[in-house]
Amino acid sequence: MNIQYSTAAQNIGSSVVREILKVTQGSDVISLAGGLPAEELFPVEAVRAAYNQVLSGNGSALQYGITEGFTPLREQIAGRLARQGIPVNMDEIMLTTGSQQAIDLICRILLDPGDVVLVETPTYLAALQSLNFYRANIHTVDHDSEGMLPEDLEEKLRRLKPKLLYTVPTFNNPSGATWSTERRQQIVQLCQRYGTLILEDNPYGELRFTSEPGSIPPTLAAIDRNSNKEHCVIYTGTFSKIVAPALRTGWIAATPELVRMVAKAKQTADLHSSAIDQRALHQLLRTFDIEQHIASVSREYHSRMKLLSQELLAQGMEGLRFREPLGGMFLWLTLPAEIDTTKLLPLAMEQGVAFVPGEVFYPSHPEKNTMRLNFTHTPPQLVQEGVQRLMRAIVQWRELETAIL
Amino acid sequence: MNIQYSTAAQNIGSSVVREILKVTQGSDVISLAGGLPAEELFPVEAVRAAYNQVLSGNGSALQYGITEGFTPLREQIAGRLARQGIPVNMDEIMLTTGSQQAIDLICRILLDPGDVVLVETPTYLAALQSLNFYRANIHTVDHDSEGMLPEDLEEKLRRLKPKLLYTVPTFNNPSGATWSTERRQQIVQLCQRYGTLILEDNPYGELRFTSEPGSIPPTLAAIDRNSNKEHCVIYTGTFSKIVAPALRTGWIAATPELVRMVAKAKQTADLHSSAIDQRALHQLLRTFDIEQHIASVSREYHSRMKLLSQELLAQGMEGLRFREPLGGMFLWLTLPAEIDTTKLLPLAMEQGVAFVPGEVFYPSHPEKNTMRLNFTHTPPQLVQEGVQRLMRAIVQWRELETAIL
Repeated sequence: MNIQYSTAAQNIGSSVVREILKVTQGSDVISLAGGLPAEELFPVEAVRAAYNQVLSGNGSALQYGITEGFTPLREQIAGRLARQGIPVNMDEIMLTTGSQQAIDLICRILLDPGDVVLVETPTYLAALQSLNFYRANIHTVDHDSEGMLPEDLEEKLRRLKPKLLYTVPTFNNPSGATWSTERRQQIVQLCQRYGTLILEDNPYGELRFTSEPGSIPPTLAAIDRNSNKEHCVIYTGTFSKIVAPALRTGWIAATPELVRMVAKAKQTADLHSSAIDQRALHQLLRTFDIEQHIASVSREYHSRMKLLSQELLAQGMEGLRFREPLGGMFLWLTLPAEIDTTKLLPLAMEQGVAFVPGEVFYPSHPEKNTMRLNFTHTPPQLVQEGVQRLMRAIVQWRELETAIL
Repeated sequence: MNIQYSTAAQNIGSSVVREILKVTQGSDVISLAGGLPAEELFPVEAVRAAYNQVLSGNGSALQYGITEGFTPLREQIAGRLARQGIPVNMDEIMLTTGSQQAIDLICRILLDPGDVVLVETPTYLAALQSLNFYRANIHTVDHDSEGMLPEDLEEKLRRLKPKLLYTVPTFNNPSGATWSTERRQQIVQLCQRYGTLILEDNPYGELRFTSEPGSIPPTLAAIDRNSNKEHCVIYTGTFSKIVAPALRTGWIAATPELVRMVAKAKQTADLHSSAIDQRALHQLLRTFDIEQHIASVSREYHSRMKLLSQELLAQGMEGLRFREPLGGMFLWLTLPAEIDTTKLLPLAMEQGVAFVPGEVFYPSHPEKNTMRLNFTHTPPQLVQEGVQRLMRAIVQWRELETAIL
């Protein structure tokens, strides 16, 4: 049958990352491409005990729930956010199927085709996919190492009247970058002044490689909520990286009005997310020291990041540049300008290593000599070999290029 | 902040059913309004054992999964569908967050604003909400007690060139009606001939009140798949009614091409549904006799339907009409023409009984003297009292009407 798909559906690309993952799964390829947490660090036993406890009562744990999510878990999340400097009430929290659904639902309630959305570059690939699906008119804001440039932002707020600014300002995926405190304050103030909503996507913010007070800037949501202006930040987080992804539980923190609107949209989308997973997480948070767990996972990720960084530096490759991230899961490489990493990828796969070409993280005008490396999922004993394979691929690519010239 | 919501978001109404549920929860109101299964029949212990087993291994059960869903569960579903007369392969199955998400994703990939969709009346409220969200141009097809009328359907297929026909042909929500076998064949043949997709929504089809072979007609999907024509039926089902709703696991069965497109849409929507719930269901299907469980739940629901039916008949109310459904969860009442059930509802709530006014299940031209009663969730010992309260409300309504005249 010849099916006429919707205009939006025709706009959906498949995720390059997921395509690479499919190829590398089960093969000998050392994948630095995925965005997976280390599964050997998941608190499996505590999760098992939590489900066991939740399912030891009567059948009510298995009944339909409310669209906004299991109330006691919403209360716990509000409590954690308050302790993290974001004062919110339970009715300002709504549960979603991972933070990906939070992005989708926010797009759903805000965007008509052609509406302007501002992003930084590079930015989260699946957010770009959602924005494209809703046919947003995506514009980028210039930045330096501290974050978006206020002058450029203000010019675009004034001229383009965007509906939304989307950002991952802390341990960015893919760049690993973290905005400075001053820049955060400026960006929030500007958006408050121009009445533009910010979607602050913060899936990695708790994976910190330093515990020194003040070393990690406050969230945009904290700055926004602690000001006396009308709130402009919608905040989204997830248990995927601090507990486990399979439970697909994320949250949105926003004003009660926005939460009500998102709930109406979610009702048509799927009625509600898994209530049993929400109850299990609620039980887990009561009995398991999640803060201690996050600290321990973060220490391990820090050491894995250091290992990758050292192996990269040990290659002594001229023109190779990167900054060690302060947290999160990704390290962003800039290679000499002539190297197009999309073209490099097939050679790297032949050598037995995978990465994500930087190009896919730009809505337009990509910096083609960049790549994203993940350091959380690859077993540490394979990292040296992975980096060496990558270097061999680069050497091979140069030989081929020279041959063509 | 003055937020400009998307046109689609402005089109979302809140579900009347969910609003009624909110009011009745925790009160003394006997609710015949909800669409909830009986939670005392959920196989809690078997579900607990399944999670326990899945979480007794290493962390891989908690890792990200693929968008299409946990492959072994997709295989089991394909196997069950094949045994139910719908020959499909694993790659024609995709898992969703309940069948509500299946409806949403199908709308997402097919509908541009203004596209025509055909429905029967009355029809599933949350499907109407999805269709409205995607700004479909909804048209109704005339019907009699056997289902849609082929003549009217053909005229509309020819004239309106619809993208989709949406139907719940078996134990319909809200009407309880079941299309005849002949009518099913005619409808499928017409849609095959005109190249129009059918979305067959079948959440209740396994809750049968008779085990006599041939007494329940084959699904549209079975008729479609067993013909030698190009397939036009997209089929959706769910574990919500045959295991439990909290796991939010439904499925789509469609051609591999459609499944690929739905998967791309789902990737932007939420990456994937809860993988731990999918693994638990897979484990449950291996160790628990689900067919026996469904038979036992169906017997209980049959007896509850009979009880409600008898209590209604016992009132001897003139002009009260209904048909006992052959399965499912709902009984559809037609009252004397002068009774507007939307206006009756507040009086009924005062008397301490809730129902859903029939009006909400029509995209236009509602039959206002109808209502949906659920018989699965109310404890049997309260049914008589519930029906008597309903009758008192009707008497009261008539007195008020007479007073106004």
